[in-house]
Amino acid sequence: MQVFLNGEFVPEAQAVVPVSDRSFLYGDGLFETLRLAGGQPFQWEAHWERLARGASGLGLVCPLDSAEARTAALELARRNGLTDAVLRLTLSRGSGPRGYSLRAAHRPCFVMTVHPAAPVVGGVPLHWNVVTATLRLPAGNSLAAFKTNNKLVQVLARAEAEARGADEALLLNTEGFVTETAAGNFFWMERGRVFTPPLAAGGLPGVARALVMELAAAGGHRVEEKLLPGHEGRRCESAFITMSTQGVVEVSSLDGTALSSSELVAETHRAYWRRVAAETGGS
Amino acid sequence: MQVFLNGEFVPEAQAVVPVSDRSFLYGDGLFETLRLAGGQPFQWEAHWERLARGASGLGLVCPLDSAEARTAALELARRNGLTDAVLRLTLSRGSGPRGYSLRAAHRPCFVMTVHPAAPVVGGVPLHWNVVTATLRLPAGNSLAAFKTNNKLVQVLARAEAEARGADEALLLNTEGFVTETAAGNFFWMERGRVFTPPLAAGGLPGVARALVMELAAAGGHRVEEKLLPGHEGRRCESAFITMSTQGVVEVSSLDGTALSSSELVAETHRAYWRRVAAETGGS
Repeated sequence: MQVFLNGEFVPEAQAVVPVSDRSFLYGDGLFETLRLAGGQPFQWEAHWERLARGASGLGLVCPLDSAEARTAALELARRNGLTDAVLRLTLSRGSGPRGYSLRAAHRPCFVMTVHPAAPVVGGVPLHWNVVTATLRLPAGNSLAAFKTNNKLVQVLARAEAEARGADEALLLNTEGFVTETAAGNFFWMERGRVFTPPLAAGGLPGVARALVMELAAAGGHRVEEKLLPGHEGRRCESAFITMSTQGVVEVSSLDGTALSSSELVAETHRAYWRRVAAETGGS
Repeated sequence: MQVFLNGEFVPEAQAVVPVSDRSFLYGDGLFETLRLAGGQPFQWEAHWERLARGASGLGLVCPLDSAEARTAALELARRNGLTDAVLRLTLSRGSGPRGYSLRAAHRPCFVMTVHPAAPVVGGVPLHWNVVTATLRLPAGNSLAAFKTNNKLVQVLARAEAEARGADEALLLNTEGFVTETAAGNFFWMERGRVFTPPLAAGGLPGVARALVMELAAAGGHRVEEKLLPGHEGRRCESAFITMSTQGVVEVSSLDGTALSSSELVAETHRAYWRRVAAETGGS
């Protein structure tokens, strides 16, 4: 497998960063994961725009612009012989002197990797069992708008979920409200209406979240933003998770309580992948 | 400069980790920084114990035990010709498949680097101007007990402080209480009494914090733990920061208000470095 590292395509074994890299030391950087279908990235612009906003927020300058990075991503997929894949972009602040100060940390590091992913066929979403994690995300955190490399809460929440026999973790914020899951945005249904937490609750502004809201609205189901206290998960009749790598994942159970399967979830998932196919020419 | 990387001493240029390293991707790891004086690490056991607690909390196994790592640290200092230095230990979960799941991420990565540091002589602490950062740490965060590699809040808080012409940032938690500074623990004086926030406010259990509390008590000044609302910083007559790399740093001003210099701070600083000299044989 080849890796794109700071402007060059290198074999995986040579795709390394110094131990002084600030993302290794502090998680001082950003990332994006997006889907490749038919060899084409899906929603490149939306992902790049979020990366650029994050870079601005962190005071980082990406060494490539969107068009250069997109061209390199296509070439990376081609070199690795992948058409259906997950593409990961990582932007680190790079190396600098020891310590938190950014002075003299001037050369960011930009990496892209591709990872094989089964094509999504037949329009059937994955079904996951979800449990509420013990760790919480900070409420009112302005960094939540950026997909940073500080993801230990998500890592440990997912580990907790897996240790409890579940597939994914639901994350509350420090005020007890639902924010998102470890790897995606959370939606739930209540008396025929569809809800998702407002971004102010501390979740990431997901690219798939925005698209699913658009697709649901086009199908006559406007998604309403509402705070959901963590202990009121029982209000959810059905629920789903959106993520750029999978589209829509239906929640089979939440904290051990089975949820109903919803035709709306299946339909939204099909609409999502029709959009992927239309925009990329892939599955 | 040589680096200790996974059991070997390597030149700095070869001290690299794969771009799939989870600390590079997620900040999925831990670190310690401690002082070397006279070529000896100061408070090795306390730092190692905190690293071990963090490793346990994150479900990580350090590939070396304390004695092995200490021996390697001494050899690293010797090879680099450093007697007065800062030693940094970094423990990452290492590489694994893409995604948050820890399944199949089984080989942690352990790194030690040394960085020259001027010997502290004459007993005069540094004096820093401190400003309160905009970003906040989560209240009630169980991860706060560990020195993790998720340090973007600290990085950006320090950057904000420097942009405002200050040296260091004071961090509040999401409930508005003082927790710590970007790089150390915070103490303040009020009517002749010395206070520090309880660890429950979300600060790191600092090794220097514990030692300074011990030294102050031995000098007749028991440090009291008390919550300090961020907007009541004006209650501080004097203040100081403790950190393993510097001992005690006096706060010259807080959010633009000059604080008084305190003989107690200077005395505690001298006592700190007497202890360093006694335990390491260094300055």
